[in-house]
This record gives sequence, C-alpha cells and structure tokens, in this order.
Amino acid sequence: MCLIMKADDHDGCVLVAPQNFAMVENGIYRSSFPKPEHFGFLTALNLRSIIYLCPEPYPEESLKFYEANNIKLFQFAIESQKDPPTPIPEDTVMAALRVLVDVRNHPILIHCKAGKHRTGCLVGCLRKVQNWCWSSVLEEYQKYAGLKCRQRDMKCIETFDTVSLRQCLLSIMYRYLGYGPNRKRLLYGEENVQTPKPQATKV
Amino acid sequence: MCLIMKADDHDGCVLVAPQNFAMVENGIYRSSFPKPEHFGFLTALNLRSIIYLCPEPYPEESLKFYEANNIKLFQFAIESQKDPPTPIPEDTVMAALRVLVDVRNHPILIHCKAGKHRTGCLVGCLRKVQNWCWSSVLEEYQKYAGLKCRQRDMKCIETFDTVSLRQCLLSIMYRYLGYGPNRKRLLYGEENVQTPKPQATKV
Repeated sequence: MCLIMKADDHDGCVLVAPQNFAMVENGIYRSSFPKPEHFGFLTALNLRSIIYLCPEPYPEESLKFYEANNIKLFQFAIESQKDPPTPIPEDTVMAALRVLVDVRNHPILIHCKAGKHRTGCLVGCLRKVQNWCWSSVLEEYQKYAGLKCRQRDMKCIETFDTVSLRQCLLSIMYRYLGYGPNRKRLLYGEENVQTPKPQATKV
Repeated sequence: MCLIMKADDHDGCVLVAPQNFAMVENGIYRSSFPKPEHFGFLTALNLRSIIYLCPEPYPEESLKFYEANNIKLFQFAIESQKDPPTPIPEDTVMAALRVLVDVRNHPILIHCKAGKHRTGCLVGCLRKVQNWCWSSVLEEYQKYAGLKCRQRDMKCIETFDTVSLRQCLLSIMYRYLGYGPNRKRLLYGEENVQTPKPQATKV
C-alpha cells in the first residue's frame, strides 16, 4: 500500500479512510462509498480502478477526481436487497470478478454503498476461488456486515461456481511467480497458459 | 497472497484461516493464534516470519512446523491485560514494529492470542505511521476487537511516537519504488538513506 511511501509527503496531513476499508489482497481493497473527504486516502492507494456495485449514478465530483487521477470506473448494477429479496444475478458477479482478478486493473477498490453486502459477496466469491473454507469466508463476511448478515448474500457466495473463474485467475497468479528474467508474461481471460522457455543471457 | 497461486494445488482441499485473519498490508497479515488446523493456510501465505506478542512459550508442534518451513519466529512478551491494567511497554512495541516494517521479514504474520488487542495495538501504531486519522485507526481496531475495546490499547496507540519509526519505514518504502534497473537497494534500521544515481545502461 502506497500510504507508507507517501507518509513523508503527507506529514501533518492525516488520511481519512472510507468506512469499512480493508485490504483484501495484494492490489485489492474494499470499502464503503468513498466521499470527497477520502480522496487524499484514495490518492495514497495509487488506484488504477474502481469496481462499483450499485445501479445509482456516480456523483460528478467523484467522477472528475477519478478522471484527473486516471482511475477507471467499472460499474456493475446490483440492486440493494428488497423485500422479498431478489437473488444477486450470477452473470453480474462473474463479470465483476473478471475485472477484479485482472492485475492490469490493480490496485483496485471494490465498493458499494456501505461496503457490507454487495462488496462482501464479491470478496466471498473470491475467497471461495482461493479455497477458503466456508467458516473462514463467513467470518470475514460478518466482520464487515456487522450484525446484518443477509441470506441472499450467503446464497450468492455458496452457489458461486469457481471453475469458470479459474482461467481468469491465471492472470493474477503470474503476479506471484516472481519478477526478473524468469517472470511470466501477463495473460488475460481465455488465453492459453504456456510457460515461457528460459532465455539464454547474451554476454 | 499466494493462496490464489496455490488454488490449483489445493483443489478439493479447503484452507482454514485462523480466526480474526486479515491482510494488513502487502506482505503483512494479522490473526489469532494459529493452530495445526491452520498450517495449510499458513503454507499458502508463504510466510517468512511471525511476530508473536505473548509471553507464553510456543507449542512444540508449531515450532517444528515453522522450522520445516523456514519461518522465523520473533517473540515479544506483552502481558495480557490485568486488573488493574498495566501499560504496554513502549520499547517492546517499538522493537516489534522494527521487525514488522523490515521487508526482509515479509511475508509476516502478527498474532497474539485472540488477534484482538495486542495485535490491534501493533497494527494501530503502524496505521499512525501511515498517517491514518484517529477515527480510521479506531474503526479498524474495533472491527477486530469486537466489543472489547480496551483503554490501555487506545493509550498505547495514541501515545506512540511515530517519528522514531520513520527511519525504519524507509526500508518498506523501497518495496514500492518499483523493480527493474531503477529500483532502490533495501535499507535497514539507521542506515543512511541516499537515492542512488541512475546508471547508464551499457550498450
């Protein structure tokens, strides 16, 4: 996180995190809806993209800030829970996850309104792909949802099919396979995965 | 986090996270006391070190696991809160933080017993160095401490002097200043900080 790097630049100027902010993964963050008072904090994160999970349009002031900072906004319209609750559309979750696991979009921030349910769903699905056991996924979901643990979110995470996201995940994998001469090139989506042959170093 | 990288290796074998587990920073994690059922999870984190914040000795089984996986254990004996509460020794917190911000120890896991108070203190001090505002630091502390927000922890974080840790922090900074020919060498502790001059590339 670049906050450390920027600590000296910000001396005496405190950074206000959006509520429910946390780091999910290298290059992946989550929070509630960021407001102008959080722009300093977002700048320190050095964000490349944002995943926004609500159908409502974005405030003009925030859009201007993103544009000025070259932050790409990906919007996926998931309705908030109604009575009776409608299921979260699988296709939308999958589309958001494909953006999320693409390291070309990192550092990336996921947010909805409160950073509890829709965001919690997406993170829960990611954890499933990471083979986290159900109780670990649930514990994390509840930590951010507080007492408001919702049945439709549980169902969304539980029924999420991890297999179809595996290929996408290969893109994030390569980030961890090291830098230097043996690093793998960045793949995306349905590209075939091949291990590049080691190159002889020219003397 | 290497869990993704290892997702294919672990197909069908779920990973159980220690309670109160979370990512704090690139290469920094926090949790409650990990038990043998969490060893698979710890393996996937590819840990290099552990900061243990309790005075009690470590279980033999865990020590063997760490040794087999080349995980260095740094123990800092902070007593749990008694009645009346004794303050957390500043020197101990500073010593733990110096280990924490040294990227040569990363990936690193901080834990105490419940992953709530002593761990929350250390993370809170780190956030202060990152210039987080008090309400953001507190929100994070409370998320993991649950209802058990302790006065002596608040005092420890509030009175923590960030200036003396700045020099150490420069070591973590360089991690974020990029790879490739212009990357900075890793510094530690009180070494002088100098920006290396750009080198001409030999043709």
